[in-house]
Amino acid sequence: MNDSDHILLAHGGGGQLTAELIRDVILPALGGQDPAALTDSAELCLPAGRVCLTTDTYVVEPLEFPGGDIGTLAVCGTVNDLAVAGAEPVALSMGLVLTEGLEIAVLRRVLASAGDAARAAGVAVVTGDTKVVERTGEPGMIVNTAGVGAMRPGATLGFGRVAAGDAVILSGPLGQHALAVMCCRKGLTVAADLKSDCAPLNAPAAALIDALGGDLRWMRDPTRAGLAGVLADLSAAAGRNVEVRQTAIPADPTAVAAAEILGLDLLSAANEGKLVAVVAAGAADRAVGVLRGFAVAADAAVIGAVGETSDLPLVEMLTRAGGRRVIQMPYGEDLPRIC
Amino acid sequence: MNDSDHILLAHGGGGQLTAELIRDVILPALGGQDPAALTDSAELCLPAGRVCLTTDTYVVEPLEFPGGDIGTLAVCGTVNDLAVAGAEPVALSMGLVLTEGLEIAVLRRVLASAGDAARAAGVAVVTGDTKVVERTGEPGMIVNTAGVGAMRPGATLGFGRVAAGDAVILSGPLGQHALAVMCCRKGLTVAADLKSDCAPLNAPAAALIDALGGDLRWMRDPTRAGLAGVLADLSAAAGRNVEVRQTAIPADPTAVAAAEILGLDLLSAANEGKLVAVVAAGAADRAVGVLRGFAVAADAAVIGAVGETSDLPLVEMLTRAGGRRVIQMPYGEDLPRIC
Repeated sequence: MNDSDHILLAHGGGGQLTAELIRDVILPALGGQDPAALTDSAELCLPAGRVCLTTDTYVVEPLEFPGGDIGTLAVCGTVNDLAVAGAEPVALSMGLVLTEGLEIAVLRRVLASAGDAARAAGVAVVTGDTKVVERTGEPGMIVNTAGVGAMRPGATLGFGRVAAGDAVILSGPLGQHALAVMCCRKGLTVAADLKSDCAPLNAPAAALIDALGGDLRWMRDPTRAGLAGVLADLSAAAGRNVEVRQTAIPADPTAVAAAEILGLDLLSAANEGKLVAVVAAGAADRAVGVLRGFAVAADAAVIGAVGETSDLPLVEMLTRAGGRRVIQMPYGEDLPRIC
Repeated sequence: MNDSDHILLAHGGGGQLTAELIRDVILPALGGQDPAALTDSAELCLPAGRVCLTTDTYVVEPLEFPGGDIGTLAVCGTVNDLAVAGAEPVALSMGLVLTEGLEIAVLRRVLASAGDAARAAGVAVVTGDTKVVERTGEPGMIVNTAGVGAMRPGATLGFGRVAAGDAVILSGPLGQHALAVMCCRKGLTVAADLKSDCAPLNAPAAALIDALGGDLRWMRDPTRAGLAGVLADLSAAAGRNVEVRQTAIPADPTAVAAAEILGLDLLSAANEGKLVAVVAAGAADRAVGVLRGFAVAADAAVIGAVGETSDLPLVEMLTRAGGRRVIQMPYGEDLPRIC
């Protein structure tokens, strides 16, 4: 390894310094056992059948926050996109864009977190790419992960399968990720014990698919645009009204307090370890029971139901006070660089 | 579409404005025919067999340069990584990171180029992600593409199959991409007719695999770190000396002149539409013939040969003047943001 303890532009040149960075910093954290890991491309062993591809780029600031960092996030976010699509994550790619001047110690910590998250999810980071760009502001990094998964044989998810009377289930309280990042960024100590919910959801998602079969209609993780965005998408794509009860939505008192202080709406705040599932009414209790068997979904609850078809489908929330509030797709988020 | 003709932070919020950007700007260029394109994840149809995954993030500046733009580059670069691994590209993901203030007209042009390049390569962009970051310098964009390919049945490529006497083939002249970008960045008009070689190579790579079978040992595209980087990797990984002849290396006179003016070494300059192939000696003429059947490889030539095994394997070039020069892996590149 070069003597420098900061990233240089030359680390991105594709030459000797890039090779040393990959060998000494990246592979030990991510590829450990496999010396062929993180080459230009990787051959995968996939079971015969349907395959799922997804990608996300992560631009969160700060890079490290209570409950995780950009490495945890990049692995969990992509694992979760596969999981809610009904796929078992098999392999991830990781593209790093580092800013000149980034401390290599920070890079090591972030990659260690990514490696830990990948092992926790049972998925391998098999190929990657590293670029370095000139510093114009604070040094930082951007991480892209793409993921390949094998569709679980029993998974038949889709908006088209959502029917009137189906139950809407949320796996836990809202807003912990967005608020942990915002409080960290703003230096708010009032919510010092608030942690991002960043976690892989492939185990509970797989359990739900296996336990419910055709009674599981559709899943999605409420990341950017939050629960409001997911329900608005569901309602629009299924062409049906959706009704949720405010009192039924699991709540984290610290996140609620932090949202009030910051003037943010928990319904549209980003989560990184939650899923929304639509299931047949008769399977709702079973689904909640399955989810509660996992620590990451211990507070799972039925929060509402799907209604009839409509030309102008609406999402409505029965409020605590007994009123009705229309839940809309947020216009744009107030919170840049949250994931 | 919003009235704004520039990217706003809110375009990355995951809400209504993001949905409009995807529907009005991104899908028409990339997903055209398929309304399900560019959702969070996509199901793929892959033939049974081995699968290849690759990724690259593109940070080139300027975004548009003679012969292409970051969209062309992002598609061709990832298609080519699959092609030289012996895979037929099936699907790409595309992760965009846009800087606040980017002109939407620029984004449209770049995505149109990406769509054109994908159609030219016969590959679909099936899923994507869009983030927006605050502006700290010039507005710009970063593009990640990951690619999934199906390994061609006849492809058995690997360093381990490289043998003494094998021929080293280069598909065309060096440095056109790096020098077109550099001349554009520096405003050099001396090389006004110099264009990036950015092009998909999956057709010639597939033809080579099919025509040569086991006589095709290994392929690689000489991008960052150029031919020097590829030959140094080949020599080190195969544990063999490699010898190339300077007079045999195809040359583009404009690129040669531009390299001289800028003081750059063509051997380590990046290419985006070239491949290096190692083939059995007896198959060399056939390989060159196959490659020359494609416009992108019309100047293909045998440039050298693989030598004996060595504990300290070296790449040497017989120079035009009759001398010998050792070709090393470049330390770091002099040229940031070239791809």
